[in-house]
Amino acid sequence: MSASRFSPGENTWANLPERWRAQLINSASGFKPLVLLSTRNSLEIDNLAVFSQLIHLGANPPLLGVLFRPDSVPRHTLENLQTQGMATVNAVRYEDRHAAHQTSARYAAEVSEFDAVGLKREFRPEWPLPFVHGCPVQWAVRLQSLVPLAANGTQLAVLEVVHLFVAEGGIQGDGYVDLAALDVATVNGLDAYHRAGSLDRLPYAKP
Amino acid sequence: MSASRFSPGENTWANLPERWRAQLINSASGFKPLVLLSTRNSLEIDNLAVFSQLIHLGANPPLLGVLFRPDSVPRHTLENLQTQGMATVNAVRYEDRHAAHQTSARYAAEVSEFDAVGLKREFRPEWPLPFVHGCPVQWAVRLQSLVPLAANGTQLAVLEVVHLFVAEGGIQGDGYVDLAALDVATVNGLDAYHRAGSLDRLPYAKP
Repeated sequence: MSASRFSPGENTWANLPERWRAQLINSASGFKPLVLLSTRNSLEIDNLAVFSQLIHLGANPPLLGVLFRPDSVPRHTLENLQTQGMATVNAVRYEDRHAAHQTSARYAAEVSEFDAVGLKREFRPEWPLPFVHGCPVQWAVRLQSLVPLAANGTQLAVLEVVHLFVAEGGIQGDGYVDLAALDVATVNGLDAYHRAGSLDRLPYAKP
Repeated sequence: MSASRFSPGENTWANLPERWRAQLINSASGFKPLVLLSTRNSLEIDNLAVFSQLIHLGANPPLLGVLFRPDSVPRHTLENLQTQGMATVNAVRYEDRHAAHQTSARYAAEVSEFDAVGLKREFRPEWPLPFVHGCPVQWAVRLQSLVPLAANGTQLAVLEVVHLFVAEGGIQGDGYVDLAALDVATVNGLDAYHRAGSLDRLPYAKP
């Protein structure tokens, strides 16, 4: 395969323009989940921020992980998570991508991104914080721990799943949630939104 | 929104069948990257295993993270990573999904999954371990650290990117790698493979 190569000493990492390198590494590392995290700040304002650095940490107990950068725009989310200890995590539909993306703008703490970008709150009796209306998968989570990664100063928030809501008809017989059928989007890098197509489920592999 | 609800005390997590719950949480948590990790064991056999629990940890320095479960099938990969300290990470094309999926079968340590599933090794002068032929994004990585997550006994392998290879024509002017154009696949849950479509890149958001 003929390829572009980035190696130490040659296209040295440190010599690449910062944004260019961030775009390269982020996009090359794969398609990511697309979620909105809703938290509440000390002014009782509902914060909303888009994230793709989400990882499935485990199913027993159900745990999600979200990575926070030291210098990231959505620092409000981490502050609120630490203060209030809770959040909602909402899977974004492709048709809501513009509103979701717009939450990444640097709004002041007095402004709720719900109102600024035009997404509706959905309240449920089980949880004090709002979910995002129209999101077909909604998680109510508690901050279980914050794991610092010495390698680069990021922190992995370990989120305990308390409630999970999946839109009617979204769960198949074996527990599988067909996100593509629910029009959930995926993101590649910082700004490239996709629909998923060509579903192919493969059977359990044996040698 | 009418929805299926999973909550403590009701559809209690612990009461759900284990595989069903794993399928639910894994698939609901979003579209994931699809990569093959190649490592070498003490018998000099090239191991190959498919992973979706990959996260972009940072771009400066370039770091990837891969989550390992205590009881996961591809434990060989973690053992080899710890012993040899290196691996290759290869983005899987949609057309190679069957072969990639087949690496999740429990092959003996004496068997190379490259040979068992019919994927070809691609050797490069810069790195002692093989890459996967045909994979349009290939990373050469070193194990930087292994971060234990007390919450569930998993471990996050922090991987330092040494070399990155991207197929000719895959990088755009701003550093963005268009994975969909390179036919890189994404996976939803344990076994649902997708092509990404309907690309929409959005501009930097301002309030």
